[in-house]
Amino acid sequence: GDGRMGVVYNGSDWNFSSRIRVSFTASGTTDGGLEFGGSMRADQATAATNGTAASVYISGAFGKLSMGDVVGASEALFGDYYEVGYTDLSSMDGYGNDIMYLTGDNGGNVGKNVATMAATSTGSATTTFSVANTGPNLLYTGTFGAFSVAASMSDGKANSTDASQEYAIAGAYTFGNYTVGLGYEYLDGRFTGTSTDSSTTPPTVTVGTVDGKADMVTLAGVAQFGNTSVKAHIAHAGKDLDIDYYGIGASSVFGATTVGGYVQHAKFNGSNEDVTWYGLGAEYDLGGGATIKGGVADNDLTGSDMVADLGVKFSF
Amino acid sequence: GDGRMGVVYNGSDWNFSSRIRVSFTASGTTDGGLEFGGSMRADQATAATNGTAASVYISGAFGKLSMGDVVGASEALFGDYYEVGYTDLSSMDGYGNDIMYLTGDNGGNVGKNVATMAATSTGSATTTFSVANTGPNLLYTGTFGAFSVAASMSDGKANSTDASQEYAIAGAYTFGNYTVGLGYEYLDGRFTGTSTDSSTTPPTVTVGTVDGKADMVTLAGVAQFGNTSVKAHIAHAGKDLDIDYYGIGASSVFGATTVGGYVQHAKFNGSNEDVTWYGLGAEYDLGGGATIKGGVADNDLTGSDMVADLGVKFSF
Amino acid sequence: GDGRMGVVYNGSDWNFSSRIRVSFTASGTTDGGLEFGGSMRADQATAATNGTAASVYISGAFGKLSMGDVVGASEALFGDYYEVGYTDLSSMDGYGNDIMYLTGDNGGNVGKNVATMAATSTGSATTTFSVANTGPNLLYTGTFGAFSVAASMSDGKANSTDASQEYAIAGAYTFGNYTVGLGYEYLDGRFTGTSTDSSTTPPTVTVGTVDGKADMVTLAGVAQFGNTSVKAHIAHAGKDLDIDYYGIGASSVFGATTVGGYVQHAKFNGSNEDVTWYGLGAEYDLGGGATIKGGVADNDLTGSDMVADLGVKFSF
Repeated sequence: GDGRMGVVYNGSDWNFSSRIRVSFTASGTTDGGLEFGGSMRADQATAATNGTAASVYISGAFGKLSMGDVVGASEALFGDYYEVGYTDLSSMDGYGNDIMYLTGDNGGNVGKNVATMAATSTGSATTTFSVANTGPNLLYTGTFGAFSVAASMSDGKANSTDASQEYAIAGAYTFGNYTVGLGYEYLDGRFTGTSTDSSTTPPTVTVGTVDGKADMVTLAGVAQFGNTSVKAHIAHAGKDLDIDYYGIGASSVFGATTVGGYVQHAKFNGSNEDVTWYGLGAEYDLGGGATIKGGVADNDLTGSDMVADLGVKFSF
Repeated sequence: GDGRMGVVYNGSDWNFSSRIRVSFTASGTTDGGLEFGGSMRADQATAATNGTAASVYISGAFGKLSMGDVVGASEALFGDYYEVGYTDLSSMDGYGNDIMYLTGDNGGNVGKNVATMAATSTGSATTTFSVANTGPNLLYTGTFGAFSVAASMSDGKANSTDASQEYAIAGAYTFGNYTVGLGYEYLDGRFTGTSTDSSTTPPTVTVGTVDGKADMVTLAGVAQFGNTSVKAHIAHAGKDLDIDYYGIGASSVFGATTVGGYVQHAKFNGSNEDVTWYGLGAEYDLGGGATIKGGVADNDLTGSDMVADLGVKFSF
Repeated sequence: GDGRMGVVYNGSDWNFSSRIRVSFTASGTTDGGLEFGGSMRADQATAATNGTAASVYISGAFGKLSMGDVVGASEALFGDYYEVGYTDLSSMDGYGNDIMYLTGDNGGNVGKNVATMAATSTGSATTTFSVANTGPNLLYTGTFGAFSVAASMSDGKANSTDASQEYAIAGAYTFGNYTVGLGYEYLDGRFTGTSTDSSTTPPTVTVGTVDGKADMVTLAGVAQFGNTSVKAHIAHAGKDLDIDYYGIGASSVFGATTVGGYVQHAKFNGSNEDVTWYGLGAEYDLGGGATIKGGVADNDLTGSDMVADLGVKFSF
């Protein structure tokens, strides 16, 4: 296969561009000495090759530079909570064990997480926001002694049609079994806003372009106590957003058994609404890469039911 | 890569859920010691990952449990007839060397085969049936001495939107060069029926939901006589269907050459129509995985022409 | 995986048919002795399996026979110019380092290159041509001493719906560091022509089927002078086309550094228009498969800007 990463000037703007292709070649020889074979490239999957479902990297003493479908700086250092269930149960209105960062981890959709969070519902009117795919992100991570640093950005442009941009920096310090870190993410986004007023028949739908700015400060900590790992974060999203968001999760290993869970809470100060969600799961390692895993998850939103799963996971 | 299989409770129903993903990672080192690489996952192909074009399994002394795009119990034990031609020539109105079982082998489309068979045409009016994709199937197979058993089912629900369900059990007994087996398949399906009356201008099209039940009993036998293998089956589909269906096929190996063929007949007692179809083919093994293969196939439907092919097949 | 290539008779016509599938199988064993695994086939990508994004071959002393997404006979022997930039910069209105041959190298779209070239614009009226995908191409190449020969053709039919056909033959002779070659390509195509007259409001759009013939003679030469490789071609497209087309390119290797470029010119005698385009690039080999590469490209069309890129390429 082959990969590439760099910047392209298209006549008016510089854009990030990355691609990875996997080549399959196969061949054989008949008893009579004829050779046969074939080739195929997995580059037809457009998402994988335009940098939104794959990544390439180059690394050295300076750290590691990745381009493509990479996470933002904060997530690169702090990660998510313990994954509950064999399917991660994130189908529950999008609330799962992931920590919702402002930038990155979005397949090139700048502002995707915040667009979801910014949806509003007032009386008979609801407004949702969506974003255009804006191509590959760039992530730098480096570790220097006890310090880890990360920086990420999107060029915010897919063929120069989107003005959205995002940046993030994060740092972490590890001492013994404890790690603390701080991240700052900034988003200057252009969203497609769709407002629906269901008080009329048919509903009145208004579609427009909404420019918005947001930033997020995330303070996170991880501690290891014997067989138990505890992670917590507290974050605030500001500018056009006003969200207080925190969570805590833990997992413990008892021989082949691991149990874990999390609880997260977000307060949307603008609409004075809030949501709490949590999950609890366990897994048993069968060895060789097979694990029995299950979990339950729920949130306190009206009309939302508990979800659960139980299955076998394989790692090859 | 990684795989998983299990059941998920979505708040109102338990559903089967399986997935397999293949990860491609590649890396290298420059002369100066920089490392580079990339990664890509073949999980963007939705069909492969939601269990309709791939499968995962776990097996042991108890037998083998598979989930995903797996065949039904009867097909797991009895299989199909000798494949005629290098492309299998199944483009001929769907009639090929496959034995049409009631369940399984349908990529999660519960009732797909029977929906095709249930199409009716009366005067100027035709009615066709289609099914929604209902997600992964579950198959169990086990061999205990001379006895083989299989059981399969679909949860009949893709996101709980389809009420279709299917079940099948089958057993086979092998003595020397002979195997006989019996399978029972049951289908409780919800179909989308589309009736078109071409006597009006424009044609009158009526679309509705049709609930239907069907079952199928299949008796199959395989015998090995020297270099020749013979397979035959006789089946009856009942409940809302009334179809008599039987076929016979054989293949003989002469050194590097194999010749084979089949003839199948189905009688649709409801509409008093019937169809006979057959195929004849040969192949020559070049060794090393390359085979020259060709065949002809035809049926006795009005307006249907004979089809043929000739080519090289490679196995890597 | 498996592959196949051959011809299929569908009741009225013989058609080329090729396919390659890659199978992924993975398995493991738990500590308790259970086996688990999964399988997935990369044949869901339709383009790859119907012969327009992959190829299969069989070769021996007679030469090599390939079917699928293969180039035409002329391109098989003469190739393209030095690739400028890490992305090849072909986004520039389609003009890049590729030599535009009449046949092949088009994913089964017979006449694609010529359809692009045949577009006309007169006053307020523009006419563009498009082609239907016509399935796999067949390519034969062979080398006998100092002589290389190639022949290619398309069956011009995707499910018998397209009447387009194409053929090409080419030969080359190598003496010392010099190679000269001559290729002849012939195209009997059926195009979809779309004429748009923007002088009316709304614009008047006319869509029709256009049958057209074209041929192209290409004379090409390659010479190696020390570390420098020079390639040049001169071609004429005739029949319903009247295009004079030539170009020259070169690349030089200085240790780990390679610099290269090309300039191409096409004169459309019918519309009395012409275009010149060129590119200049350089690359530095980091070893181990990593290369820093960049370039600039431009053409003399009105409203077209220079494009540029700079990035890292990986080969795994």
